[in-house]
Amino acid sequence: MQQLKQQVFDANMDLPRYGLVTFTWGNVSAIDRERGRVAIKPSGVAYDVMRPEDMVVVDLDGNVIDGKWNPSSDTATHLALYRRYPSLGGVVHTHSTHATAWAQAGLAIPALGTTHADYFFGDIPCTRALTEEEVQGEYELNTGKVIIETIGEHEPLHTPGIVVWQHGPFAWGKSAHDAVHNAVVMEEVAKMAWIARGINPQLQPIDSYLMNKHYQRKHGPNAYYGQK
Amino acid sequence: MQQLKQQVFDANMDLPRYGLVTFTWGNVSAIDRERGRVAIKPSGVAYDVMRPEDMVVVDLDGNVIDGKWNPSSDTATHLALYRRYPSLGGVVHTHSTHATAWAQAGLAIPALGTTHADYFFGDIPCTRALTEEEVQGEYELNTGKVIIETIGEHEPLHTPGIVVWQHGPFAWGKSAHDAVHNAVVMEEVAKMAWIARGINPQLQPIDSYLMNKHYQRKHGPNAYYGQK
Amino acid sequence: MQQLKQQVFDANMDLPRYGLVTFTWGNVSAIDRERGRVAIKPSGVAYDVMRPEDMVVVDLDGNVIDGKWNPSSDTATHLALYRRYPSLGGVVHTHSTHATAWAQAGLAIPALGTTHADYFFGDIPCTRALTEEEVQGEYELNTGKVIIETIGEHEPLHTPGIVVWQHGPFAWGKSAHDAVHNAVVMEEVAKMAWIARGINPQLQPIDSYLMNKHYQRKHGPNAYYGQK
Amino acid sequence: MQQLKQQVFDANMDLPRYGLVTFTWGNVSAIDRERGRVAIKPSGVAYDVMRPEDMVVVDLDGNVIDGKWNPSSDTATHLALYRRYPSLGGVVHTHSTHATAWAQAGLAIPALGTTHADYFFGDIPCTRALTEEEVQGEYELNTGKVIIETIGEHEPLHTPGIVVWQHGPFAWGKSAHDAVHNAVVMEEVAKMAWIARGINPQLQPIDSYLMNKHYQRKHGPNAYYGQK
Repeated sequence: MQQLKQQVFDANMDLPRYGLVTFTWGNVSAIDRERGRVAIKPSGVAYDVMRPEDMVVVDLDGNVIDGKWNPSSDTATHLALYRRYPSLGGVVHTHSTHATAWAQAGLAIPALGTTHADYFFGDIPCTRALTEEEVQGEYELNTGKVIIETIGEHEPLHTPGIVVWQHGPFAWGKSAHDAVHNAVVMEEVAKMAWIARGINPQLQPIDSYLMNKHYQRKHGPNAYYGQK
Repeated sequence: MQQLKQQVFDANMDLPRYGLVTFTWGNVSAIDRERGRVAIKPSGVAYDVMRPEDMVVVDLDGNVIDGKWNPSSDTATHLALYRRYPSLGGVVHTHSTHATAWAQAGLAIPALGTTHADYFFGDIPCTRALTEEEVQGEYELNTGKVIIETIGEHEPLHTPGIVVWQHGPFAWGKSAHDAVHNAVVMEEVAKMAWIARGINPQLQPIDSYLMNKHYQRKHGPNAYYGQK
Repeated sequence: MQQLKQQVFDANMDLPRYGLVTFTWGNVSAIDRERGRVAIKPSGVAYDVMRPEDMVVVDLDGNVIDGKWNPSSDTATHLALYRRYPSLGGVVHTHSTHATAWAQAGLAIPALGTTHADYFFGDIPCTRALTEEEVQGEYELNTGKVIIETIGEHEPLHTPGIVVWQHGPFAWGKSAHDAVHNAVVMEEVAKMAWIARGINPQLQPIDSYLMNKHYQRKHGPNAYYGQK
Repeated sequence: MQQLKQQVFDANMDLPRYGLVTFTWGNVSAIDRERGRVAIKPSGVAYDVMRPEDMVVVDLDGNVIDGKWNPSSDTATHLALYRRYPSLGGVVHTHSTHATAWAQAGLAIPALGTTHADYFFGDIPCTRALTEEEVQGEYELNTGKVIIETIGEHEPLHTPGIVVWQHGPFAWGKSAHDAVHNAVVMEEVAKMAWIARGINPQLQPIDSYLMNKHYQRKHGPNAYYGQK
């Protein structure tokens, strides 16, 4: 359990390092699938005083198993994703500037180039708006549900992120570290897409064969990027 | 009084730390309501040489009670706000880039997402232009008056900031620290709103029930963000 | 002479500190009016190896009086300005991002708010294009001449900067330090003006009485900003 | 060979220093023309753990001569450029934000000012899209071929960079160090051109005689910028 808390702590500390958060506006979790335990950032604790032992451990129903703090207020969203998609090892939520701007614009972040295709297979979708009932009910759980409704039966690791309507980005990966890595990429491609469309409003989405090539050379069965 | 000066000093030093000021373009004050004393940054003193004892203490009429420097040239604006709104504990003025751009555009910073709603209930308003008489008269006092005219009977802590027409942002809070915190948020949501509208000029303002939810989960009677 | 070289060195080192230069794309000079000597950055020397003794001293005709390096290739522009305007104590040229973008756009940086008016009285003008003859002749001298043609009989310290058509910004002041200070402000107001016009293409220039007020409270005979 | 590896290592480490790369998204190579050896960054190795001895040495056909890692997945692109253009000493590929945005926009980076003309003679071209066959075949080699098709018989050092359609920038120079230098300039002029066109969509390209003048004063037979 210490190892899980350390991983989650490290991944949370990467958020300010990569410029993804202001104040406490972000949270990362990771799951230990064997034990059914999720470690997550405590709610509203500042990054510069946070320690590994401050991470909160909950079960998949949200019961606090270990830790003296309240878990992140977004915990129910994380848990919904872990319950639905067994491939997820880590989940992250931020309000990073450019990805959040796409959420506020209510639009998917379009796949415009190989930078995007190296990590995300196709557009990074934007959820529908939650209804008034969904917001006034179990809001954080319903946020998870609307993400799941958008992803549906697709493998979430193929497009490891989403923007929630008028809210901001969620990303995920095989681990907490991977999830943050993907959140960094999402912020960068969100910025590039904003600028590229400003330069040429009539630009084309990336050619599908080029998208395939780049995604597969990094993530496919015959991937040849990086070291074996 | 030392404590008040230290708080105001610390809050002023946060302005360059958060990238809100160039040179000396900003000032923070705080009030001790019991004694009727306001500590504020001295005018035109550089941040890298400023010390806690350089803070100037004035009464609510602007008379210097303690300190060897001239108080900030914007002191009369701060005092007008403290006299009118008893809930204010700290006030800050900056020329932060994106919030100032909205002031120059002459437009309210629209509430477009939950990042905004977590701190500001509704649009961050833009004042009307001061008249020639108001500018040539007691300019800084009149700046305070036009802010008050815009806020009116609303509780200022619910939307803790404003942009003054063709000038720049003012923010406030329960303390000097809170005021600066809100100024950081205002700058960030000003940047996000600029980008979001560039991406989608037809975007919608945040759904009112989503705005309510986010504001209340952080600031309402049943707030559940953070630790108890 | 050592003092002048030290001042010019310090002011040049402020360029990377304030993010105004990439590589060696900037130069600052200062003049000793009594002796008729100008110290200026050597041409093409990197900031991280430059020392005070590397500054080059020239007379007002450009003859090297002291120093082992070639003076900045823009020296003739600096000298033209010193010869024409006796109030100038320091001159700086950079390719800072946003001010250069206005030069490339071929437009004056419009006076849109008090941040601008605190330092620049009115728009920061853009010169006309140099003719082919002017470019193929004494190019750097002619750059100085087209700046002078644009300023004309106005006191250059009232609007201490300009953008040269398709080239970039020059700024000046009572000293090398003041010149760099004004170049930092120019870059910041250039950025704000770009963003503000993106937010509201129909925005108004700053009200003339507000511009007067802000310029005069800092620079007029009854200035009350800062300390006595 | 150690010297070549050290040069390539140093040049690769300049990429994060100048803000051109996120994670491992960039690679620099250099060639020893006498021996026909190219040193290049290993694929997917993080900058903060990379050492000079991790550089991989290949021959001009891509056979690994020295090194325990896989060479960059873009090696075939670099080699194609070295084989075709004997003047090239170093090549760099990044996904720097603004240059990549122009690639995604599918447009050449237009020559709009002297900052551009000091290094690039004319627009920085954008390649055509690769065909499906080219992408599914020897993709990285074909990327090199489409760059070569775009440059044609021009001397590549006169316009030392290109953006590849929907992908990103490649730059080059007489050495690895020069190549990175040019990549930094390309990113900066890509940013300036985006902003300048946002300010004035009807702006003019740089006057041809001004472009000639600036390019020649730095790179022509009678260059007078810098030191002899």
